[in-house]
Amino acid sequence: MTTQVCIIGAGPAGLLLGHLLKAEGVDCVVLERRAPDYILSRIRAGVLETITVELMERLGLDARMKSEGLWHDGFNLADGDRLIRIDMADLVGSRVMVYGQTEITKDLMDACDERGLEVVYEAEDVALHDVEGDAPYVTYSKDGAEHRVDCRFVAGCDGFHGPSRKAIPASVGKEFERVYPFGWLGILADVPPCNHELIYANHERGFGLASMRSETRSRYYVDVPLTDAVEDWGDERLWDELAIRLGPEAAANITRGPALEKSIAPLRSYVFAPMRHGRLLLCGDSAHIVPPTGAKGLNLAASDVHYASAALAAFFKANDHDAIAGYSDKALARVWKSERFSWSLTKLMHRFPEDGPFERAMQVAELDYIASSRAAQTSIAENYVGLPV
Amino acid sequence: MTTQVCIIGAGPAGLLLGHLLKAEGVDCVVLERRAPDYILSRIRAGVLETITVELMERLGLDARMKSEGLWHDGFNLADGDRLIRIDMADLVGSRVMVYGQTEITKDLMDACDERGLEVVYEAEDVALHDVEGDAPYVTYSKDGAEHRVDCRFVAGCDGFHGPSRKAIPASVGKEFERVYPFGWLGILADVPPCNHELIYANHERGFGLASMRSETRSRYYVDVPLTDAVEDWGDERLWDELAIRLGPEAAANITRGPALEKSIAPLRSYVFAPMRHGRLLLCGDSAHIVPPTGAKGLNLAASDVHYASAALAAFFKANDHDAIAGYSDKALARVWKSERFSWSLTKLMHRFPEDGPFERAMQVAELDYIASSRAAQTSIAENYVGLPV
Repeated sequence: MTTQVCIIGAGPAGLLLGHLLKAEGVDCVVLERRAPDYILSRIRAGVLETITVELMERLGLDARMKSEGLWHDGFNLADGDRLIRIDMADLVGSRVMVYGQTEITKDLMDACDERGLEVVYEAEDVALHDVEGDAPYVTYSKDGAEHRVDCRFVAGCDGFHGPSRKAIPASVGKEFERVYPFGWLGILADVPPCNHELIYANHERGFGLASMRSETRSRYYVDVPLTDAVEDWGDERLWDELAIRLGPEAAANITRGPALEKSIAPLRSYVFAPMRHGRLLLCGDSAHIVPPTGAKGLNLAASDVHYASAALAAFFKANDHDAIAGYSDKALARVWKSERFSWSLTKLMHRFPEDGPFERAMQVAELDYIASSRAAQTSIAENYVGLPV
Repeated sequence: MTTQVCIIGAGPAGLLLGHLLKAEGVDCVVLERRAPDYILSRIRAGVLETITVELMERLGLDARMKSEGLWHDGFNLADGDRLIRIDMADLVGSRVMVYGQTEITKDLMDACDERGLEVVYEAEDVALHDVEGDAPYVTYSKDGAEHRVDCRFVAGCDGFHGPSRKAIPASVGKEFERVYPFGWLGILADVPPCNHELIYANHERGFGLASMRSETRSRYYVDVPLTDAVEDWGDERLWDELAIRLGPEAAANITRGPALEKSIAPLRSYVFAPMRHGRLLLCGDSAHIVPPTGAKGLNLAASDVHYASAALAAFFKANDHDAIAGYSDKALARVWKSERFSWSLTKLMHRFPEDGPFERAMQVAELDYIASSRAAQTSIAENYVGLPV
C-alpha cells in the first residue's frame, strides 16, 4: 500500500488527524493494533477545550457533541469546606464542553466510511522504518500476512506505549518525567451528578473530584496510595470517602449507585522532545503525558494534531519544508504550558507524603488567595479553557 | 515605670508601632537590647509596599523617603536570557518605593524626641511576665540596675530571636517552617545599578538579583550553597557570577566596585500562630519570617503594626476587647498570603538540589507562561505591590 501519511493509532488523535488530512486532500491510512470495540470500551476524560471543539466543528462532526454534550461556564475548587467557583465565561469569555473522549472517538470512527478514511484495525507488530529518509515505510502483520505501507510521513498517534516514540534513537531525544506518589481511583455510575459543574477538592484526607459524562452519568475520583487495589474499595467505602472529601455542600447532593466501572490509574508527567524526527511526527500521548488534573490529555493531542495537520498540508500543497521543521517547536510551546498547568493544579489539589504542615498551609493559603483574586482566577480559567493555539 | 503598651524591640516594627500609638494618644515605651548605632548598621531589604509607604505618610515622616526614595513602576524576571517586565503601574495601577529599611528606621528614630516616643536602648535581659492576665509587666536590666515596666499590653516586635514569642507556652501555638537549601550572598557597593528596576534571575547556574538602595548604591545577590563562606567569594568572582546569571542585557551595564558589605544570609519560611496570647501581641519577625525573594519582610511587619495599632487604639479609646481578640486572625490572613507569594517566587527563581530536568522545565515553562499572560503578570504584580490590607 502507498499513501502520503501513515498514521499509527486510531484513538482520537489518529482519527482526528486522519479526518483533517482527508479534508485537506492529503492521502492517509490509519493502522490500529486493537479492534474498534476495544477502543470504544476505554474510559477516558471528558472535558473539551475550545481547540478540541473547534476541530470537531471544522470537520462538521460536531452535531452529536452539540446535542448531547454539556457546556460548562465554570468549575469549582474546594478546600474541604467552601467551593471556590472559577467562572470561565465571566473571567475569560469562554467555556468548556463536557463530552466523553469515548464519544469523540465514536463520532470520528462513525465518519470514516463516508469520508473514505481507511483504518486498518488489529494491525499487529507495527514497525517504523527509514523515518530519517524521504521514503519511510511501516510494516505490520494482520491475519497471518505481512503488510507494508510506503509513505512520505509517519504520524505517531499510538500513545505512550506504542512503537513510534521508540523508533527515535535515544541519542536524539530527551525525556522529562515526574511520577506522582498516588493514583486516581475512579468510579463511573449511572446517577445524576452531585453538582452541575465539576468540583476539584483538596481535603485533609486527600483529593476528590466530582465529574460527569452526562446529566445521568457521573464520574468521581479520589486519590489513593499506589499500594491500594480496586478490591480494597467497595462501592460504599468509596461513596463515603467522596462525601467527606468533596465537602458538605456537594455531599448533600451525591446520589449513590452501583459502579459501572472502577479502576485505579497512576499519575505521570512526561514529555519527549523533540516531537519530530526526520519524517516522523509524534502527536498526543506518544510524546507526552499529563496527570489527569485539569483534563488536558485529549486536548493536548488535539492541539498537536492541529499543528501537525497544518504542517503536513503545507508540505503537500506548497512543498513547505519549513512547516515540517517547525512542527516540534510549535507543538511543544503549548505542550509545556499545559504540562505546567496540569502539574501545578496537581500539586495544589493533592497531599504529598513529603509535605509537612508548612506545605499544607501553603495549599490553604493559595486556595484562599485564589478565592480573593480575580487575577489568580483569570490565570486558572485561561489555562482551563485552553491557552491560545 | 507604668505605661499602656510596652513595645519590645526598636527595629522598624517597634518604632512604627510606637509612633502610631503615640499619634492615637496611647501611651507606650520601647525597650531595645541594642544601641542605636548597631540597629542602623544592619543591612536589610529596601522595597516598600503601598501599606508601608502609607504608614509613613500617615505619621508625616515621609519627607526624606519621598525626596530620596525611588518609585519603581515595574520589575523584571529573567530566565538567564530575556527580561520579562512586570509593569505594576499598568497592570494594577500601583508601584513600590525603593528606600532602604535602614533609612526608614533612621527616620523613625530621628522623630522620637520631638514626638515624645521614649526608647530605652541597651535594655538587657528583657523578660515578659503575666501576659495571660490583665496586668502584664516587663523586666529588664540596664547599667547594672533592674527595671520594671507595668503595662496593659506587651507588643513583641523583637524579631525571630527575641524573648516575646518564647514567652508563649509551646502548647498554645503552632510553628510552620521551611528551611531552604541555599543562602543569599549579598554585596553592597557604591556603584550605579545595572538597571533602573530590579531583576530577579533564574539562570542555569542559579539565582541572581540586581537591586539598589539609590542611584549610586547597588545591592546584588546570588544564591550559594549553605556550605560556602563569604571568604570563598572574592569581589571579582562575585561580579563575574552576577554578569552570567543576570543575563547579557544586564551584564553589559554592570559597574563593578569594592564591596562595602558582603554577607551570606540563610533563607527560611516560618509562621507562628496565633499571633496573640493574652495581652501579648506579636508583630513582624517575632511571628514570621519570609525568604527575601519579593522583599516582604519589612512590609509584613508594617501590616501587622497597622492591625495591632488599630486594635490597641480601639481598646483604649472604646474599650473594644473584640478588636484585640481579632488581631491574630486579621494579621495572619495577610501573613499567609505573603508567605505563599515569597515561597512561590523563591521556588520559581531558584534551583533546588532535589529538582531534576522535569522540574527545571516547569520553571522555564512558568516563566514562558508569565511572559505570555497578562493575568499571570497581574497576579504577580498585585502580590508584589502588596495585597489589600
